[in-house]
Amino acid sequence: MRQTKYFLKTSKTVSEDEPTVNGRLLEQAGFVSKLMAGVYTYLPLGLRVLNNISKIVREEMNAVGASELLMPMLHPKEIWQTTGGWDNIDVLFKINSRTEKEYALGQSEEEVVTPLVLSRVQSYKDLPLAVYQIGWKFRDELRAKSGLLRGREFLMKDMYSFHVSQEDFDRFYAEAKQAYFKIFTRLGLTAKATEASGGSFSQKISYEFMVLTDAGEDDILYCETCDYCVNVEITELKSGASCPKSCGGLLTQGRASEVGNVFDLGQKYGKDFGLGFTDVGGNKQYPVMGCYGIGISRLMGVIAETMNDPKGILWPENVAPFKVHLIALPGKDAENVFSASDKLYAELIESGVEVLYDDRADTSAGEKFADSDLIGIPHRVIISQKTLADASVEHKKRNEDKSSLVSLDQVRQIL
Amino acid sequence: MRQTKYFLKTSKTVSEDEPTVNGRLLEQAGFVSKLMAGVYTYLPLGLRVLNNISKIVREEMNAVGASELLMPMLHPKEIWQTTGGWDNIDVLFKINSRTEKEYALGQSEEEVVTPLVLSRVQSYKDLPLAVYQIGWKFRDELRAKSGLLRGREFLMKDMYSFHVSQEDFDRFYAEAKQAYFKIFTRLGLTAKATEASGGSFSQKISYEFMVLTDAGEDDILYCETCDYCVNVEITELKSGASCPKSCGGLLTQGRASEVGNVFDLGQKYGKDFGLGFTDVGGNKQYPVMGCYGIGISRLMGVIAETMNDPKGILWPENVAPFKVHLIALPGKDAENVFSASDKLYAELIESGVEVLYDDRADTSAGEKFADSDLIGIPHRVIISQKTLADASVEHKKRNEDKSSLVSLDQVRQIL
Repeated sequence: MRQTKYFLKTSKTVSEDEPTVNGRLLEQAGFVSKLMAGVYTYLPLGLRVLNNISKIVREEMNAVGASELLMPMLHPKEIWQTTGGWDNIDVLFKINSRTEKEYALGQSEEEVVTPLVLSRVQSYKDLPLAVYQIGWKFRDELRAKSGLLRGREFLMKDMYSFHVSQEDFDRFYAEAKQAYFKIFTRLGLTAKATEASGGSFSQKISYEFMVLTDAGEDDILYCETCDYCVNVEITELKSGASCPKSCGGLLTQGRASEVGNVFDLGQKYGKDFGLGFTDVGGNKQYPVMGCYGIGISRLMGVIAETMNDPKGILWPENVAPFKVHLIALPGKDAENVFSASDKLYAELIESGVEVLYDDRADTSAGEKFADSDLIGIPHRVIISQKTLADASVEHKKRNEDKSSLVSLDQVRQIL
Repeated sequence: MRQTKYFLKTSKTVSEDEPTVNGRLLEQAGFVSKLMAGVYTYLPLGLRVLNNISKIVREEMNAVGASELLMPMLHPKEIWQTTGGWDNIDVLFKINSRTEKEYALGQSEEEVVTPLVLSRVQSYKDLPLAVYQIGWKFRDELRAKSGLLRGREFLMKDMYSFHVSQEDFDRFYAEAKQAYFKIFTRLGLTAKATEASGGSFSQKISYEFMVLTDAGEDDILYCETCDYCVNVEITELKSGASCPKSCGGLLTQGRASEVGNVFDLGQKYGKDFGLGFTDVGGNKQYPVMGCYGIGISRLMGVIAETMNDPKGILWPENVAPFKVHLIALPGKDAENVFSASDKLYAELIESGVEVLYDDRADTSAGEKFADSDLIGIPHRVIISQKTLADASVEHKKRNEDKSSLVSLDQVRQIL
């Protein structure tokens, strides 16, 4: 993508009412634009990041055998009354239409997915079954001051599974948990699975997947030795205590952001809607359901929040909006530099490499480098009069200090 | 995709309160599920169609040089007050949050895109500029009884362009119009461009792109000889009159659905927000803006509405959820039939062909054929004991009556 044709503008100034690193960096680098607290436009660079994260999540959800669909955001009041959510969930946005019909804006989709799936399930032979979507959710938050970490409008992957028994649920739940760890690893993140309370969804114990970051909104206690981890909300343990798993390690308290969760919903939703299946013995049963969330837009915030240096963001390659930032420094030899850069750009595109091409003619080298560091694309390739004298480009990784000259013939091999 | 692992269930019955063909067919064939009037879940098959349409639209919008971004759906009241829409647009959904802050749900995005873009534009050198999104919109419709043709929640592509002059706008407008015709052609549709009034957006003349269908909600007069076409709302011409372009043709009246539109917004939005650019002479100017919509979910409805036969849908290949429906008829030789089918399925997937594989063991041939016709995938490939006796498959196109035997070795060449 040529920068001169792209809707991309970085900013030197920082919004003063933006307390988090991710909110400031993502705005400054031209990934998002805040419409109001907790509600963002995803600019072209940001939309690419969101799509890259979604793609990884989608692949791993498909791998556990879930079918992707897309549920509505506008919900009739009645389904939320059926489950009690209309009166009990304080973050539920409510709409009174001009036809006097009341609606809710989806903040989760149990109310939609339960009748949708169970009306298509007759017998135990139709189970287990899992569906998921990557869709926008809304929450009437009192405060939303954490950049992309707490949205009033945010993108989530939510999966729902349906099982004939607790045992079968446990089996799938374990698979889903492994898929979650795979996702976070592919995103370059280390997530800890914590025990937590079930929140408004369920009173059963659930798991939260936490990434340590000071901008997070949860406090967790984690063992430095084993994988024990717990939300401080549900424990009386303190920082410095011995790990309850008797591994010999000590617990440390840290601030973290919840990037995913899994809930054992039990039979609540099937019972609420009076929808079940016929079991092997011919009796009506309610399925055991699970709900599995991943905050896609929040993950974008967590990555920006945790992977940066004083100059800007350091996107992991799987997530970066482009793989390569090609920078032409025209100097006094604009014709040759642009001609060589245009050629390399075309070749890289041809080979399927995703390239952002800084083809601006009147911008200084210093400004181009500053923008490039801020944006944080993993590979930087510079073409200038100087590099062309050696029939080369200068190559530098965003997360390394040293650069190297690479001959024009060999650039494609290293990218 | 193996049907036994896929969330797909067709239905023999038709919802009685669904008056349109597209609503009935898409529900029956398992593409969508109605949550309430005008609000649908896109089931796995339907989501694939929506994505295929989006992909074509995206490619053509990128080709005219527009940058894709994604704007929020939840809007602060203030931006709608600035343009007068808060009080004047009757289909605007309004939300009163628990913090007493009022929001609107986006039904179009001029109020978001104008400040977003113009705050990043300083001079005439930054223009022209076009951005677009493929995003969900909401309208508080009094009636929504046309299946996917009129949604309370619907997917739209909306592009916005910004120009230094009317002349430059006209140039881009002509390009966008050509891109639109290209899109409809790729979707297998014949669209007519009609003159219409500007609606709530603008008082200038706009263009609507219409596809003839009885389920549509507009009446148009079109010339059978030339490309003249007009919405009856803004003309005094009648059916049977001579074409005003003096081509010698006569006008015919028909029912149509509006699948796209382009509006000349003039300088209204720049003025409303007090945001402009510095022109060549150093003076502040307001840009001329254009708005270009395409109804993505409506297009899905229009295609189903216009391309069907008594047995089901006939998807054009560019839009179909899968290219091939592979059907195994196990009969009395289940082991061999499934073994050959599994092998062909794997080979097709390997070659990048998108295949839905009816691998159900206990379903009759008749039921499989009925489902396949209903779903409407362009190519059907049948493997049975009979075809295997000839080391062949039976191949039939959905839109043709005759089938032919093709040797197993050659199947991949014809798909």
